[in-house]
Amino acid sequence: MRTLITNIGELTTNDPSSADPTGALHDAAVLIDHGRIEWAGEADDVPTDAEGYQEVDAGGRAVIPGFVDSHSHIVFGGDRAEEFEARMAGQKYAAGGIRSTVAATRAASDDELRARVRGFLGEMLAQGTTTVEIKSGYGLDVDTEARLVRLAAEVTEEVTYLGAHVVPIEYADRSDEYVDLVVGEMLDACAPHSKWIDVFCETGAFTVPQARRVLEAGIARGLQPRVHASQLGPGDGVQLAIELGAASVDHGTYLTDADVTALAASDTVLTLLPGVEFSTRQPYPDARRLIDAGITVALACDTNPGSSFTSSMSFCIAVAVREMGMTTAEAIWAATAGGASALRRDDIGVIAPGKRADIVLLDAPTRVHLAYRPGVPLVKHVWKDGAQVR
Amino acid sequence: MRTLITNIGELTTNDPSSADPTGALHDAAVLIDHGRIEWAGEADDVPTDAEGYQEVDAGGRAVIPGFVDSHSHIVFGGDRAEEFEARMAGQKYAAGGIRSTVAATRAASDDELRARVRGFLGEMLAQGTTTVEIKSGYGLDVDTEARLVRLAAEVTEEVTYLGAHVVPIEYADRSDEYVDLVVGEMLDACAPHSKWIDVFCETGAFTVPQARRVLEAGIARGLQPRVHASQLGPGDGVQLAIELGAASVDHGTYLTDADVTALAASDTVLTLLPGVEFSTRQPYPDARRLIDAGITVALACDTNPGSSFTSSMSFCIAVAVREMGMTTAEAIWAATAGGASALRRDDIGVIAPGKRADIVLLDAPTRVHLAYRPGVPLVKHVWKDGAQVR
Repeated sequence: MRTLITNIGELTTNDPSSADPTGALHDAAVLIDHGRIEWAGEADDVPTDAEGYQEVDAGGRAVIPGFVDSHSHIVFGGDRAEEFEARMAGQKYAAGGIRSTVAATRAASDDELRARVRGFLGEMLAQGTTTVEIKSGYGLDVDTEARLVRLAAEVTEEVTYLGAHVVPIEYADRSDEYVDLVVGEMLDACAPHSKWIDVFCETGAFTVPQARRVLEAGIARGLQPRVHASQLGPGDGVQLAIELGAASVDHGTYLTDADVTALAASDTVLTLLPGVEFSTRQPYPDARRLIDAGITVALACDTNPGSSFTSSMSFCIAVAVREMGMTTAEAIWAATAGGASALRRDDIGVIAPGKRADIVLLDAPTRVHLAYRPGVPLVKHVWKDGAQVR
Repeated sequence: MRTLITNIGELTTNDPSSADPTGALHDAAVLIDHGRIEWAGEADDVPTDAEGYQEVDAGGRAVIPGFVDSHSHIVFGGDRAEEFEARMAGQKYAAGGIRSTVAATRAASDDELRARVRGFLGEMLAQGTTTVEIKSGYGLDVDTEARLVRLAAEVTEEVTYLGAHVVPIEYADRSDEYVDLVVGEMLDACAPHSKWIDVFCETGAFTVPQARRVLEAGIARGLQPRVHASQLGPGDGVQLAIELGAASVDHGTYLTDADVTALAASDTVLTLLPGVEFSTRQPYPDARRLIDAGITVALACDTNPGSSFTSSMSFCIAVAVREMGMTTAEAIWAATAGGASALRRDDIGVIAPGKRADIVLLDAPTRVHLAYRPGVPLVKHVWKDGAQVR
């Protein structure tokens, strides 16, 4: 399958070799050869041998790389709409609410969870998300956590073992014993299906020493670390993540100046999750300060039934521009190339020769419309690995 | 065409005869007879003669009345993406930006504008909006304003003549002369195609005495008044609107206590436009204070290329819940029955016998998901006048 997308009004390539980090081109075209980008550039320069390609006229619209959503929790049962309503009526968000989803998830069959995950993935793909990381963390016992990573591995390469999401109710006041399980039998069961190890390092979840045990055990088993930290208040999780070479530290709602300096000097991406601040009424982090300090920022949805049930990367972009001081170009970069960086992937998030042909055609003349037209479904077509899926 | 929608998990009727203003029912069904609701109630009570109806299984999902978007400006040329970007980079919103859209609108042909309007209407319908009010106001000369109301009247009954949107550049420093035109030749040309007369009563647009002239002239021609006021700062536009019996006063970002008291004692609806505060970075009005004071509140998108380019009522609901202190039930009521009230319509915004069959089936178990899942396109099916259009 070879495709030529022509008449692209604005092409965001994110090509790191261009002067503008978003590598924006106008009146552009893209050649797709099977699953990969063959060529991208100005329409006048399309290689003359581009015959026999299926031609798609973009009608002057904007094209961007598929969104890379590097943080989700979409294998779960039930929902928490009532908790959401209570929160909107003034109740504060607390990590403990996770436990109610744990009960519903344990009770769900594989087929029920599978249908749910596939439903979310379809919804995400229709909204332009072509890569999704999926975490476990609503099982919190050996069998269920193993089920969750196995079900996630059916649909993505980016599977994260998050047995250390929260301490389950049956281990209340015995959190160290639960960590023993997480780094022992549960890790044995989950590691074969996982690429990443993650931990929620926060008051109400796991302490820094506990988080260190979890991450080091995962690393010893060949998993790569990523960390939830500084969502509900400042803490030492960010420093731990950097010390252990985490690909990403996620949330960062409450960062100290020392965190900012350390992140800027590190290879760790900071993944901001605007849907969480939106849906928990927490203050938004100042992305402007973080980007200006030299930190690599990614944006992700954190789709989960508690703190952020959006699956719309466009919505997160619009909120990041409104509330976090990002330009639209920065927000779109963060939602594509930034997400790829948070997953240490160099084959996605970029429209350049040899990269995966994960491409979104917007029903808009420029990418700015993603923030300028908040909430409007602007994704017209999506290609995933070169196949048009919408 | 007769349709039976069964297996509705949650039905929002907005039936004013029920104790709960949203008239919520569970395990419900709706009968549609041609363009009208024939019956709505609990599924067990479906009339036994409901045979021969086309049956739609809602699969336990939620059903709400179609959204009534009582404030839009969707007949225009061009866009103002660059102004949006400048504003997100720190520039303040000012009413004068309207003039750049005026130039693009005057330059556009009828067919170009018609294609644009129909594009927006399609986008709105796909998002569950079954009634849209459309204003003129980007012509600001007799011919173009007349073209705009005529084009609007092709697609909606709710046409608003807004010649007094802003003073056009050619009348700079001669605003009273422009008002002469608005209440004279321009009104003659526009009144035959319009139902409503509107004016932007604000510093930078029209003074209270000018607004009074405009509204009174419209009323004398049989148009009904509605007013843009208190968007950019407090002013006397709200009091004027109430005095003249306006169906709605729109924006109300800056209301005084006297405004609130007067609105609560009046038949004038207050139409809040959260997309405007979102896209202009203005402070959100406190809807909680307004509802608690007894004001009837509507929500609308204010779709326009300057201050709010969203067309998503769901987005507006999510922002109203996050930022304005509304419950989801209040926000959905405001976006359906509230919008109908702002248009003085009793045939829409309600799912009850005899009302228009404008109905939305959500891809969600409850209506709360509209706020709980911000930005996610949750509209699965839409019926407009009894016909399934999506």
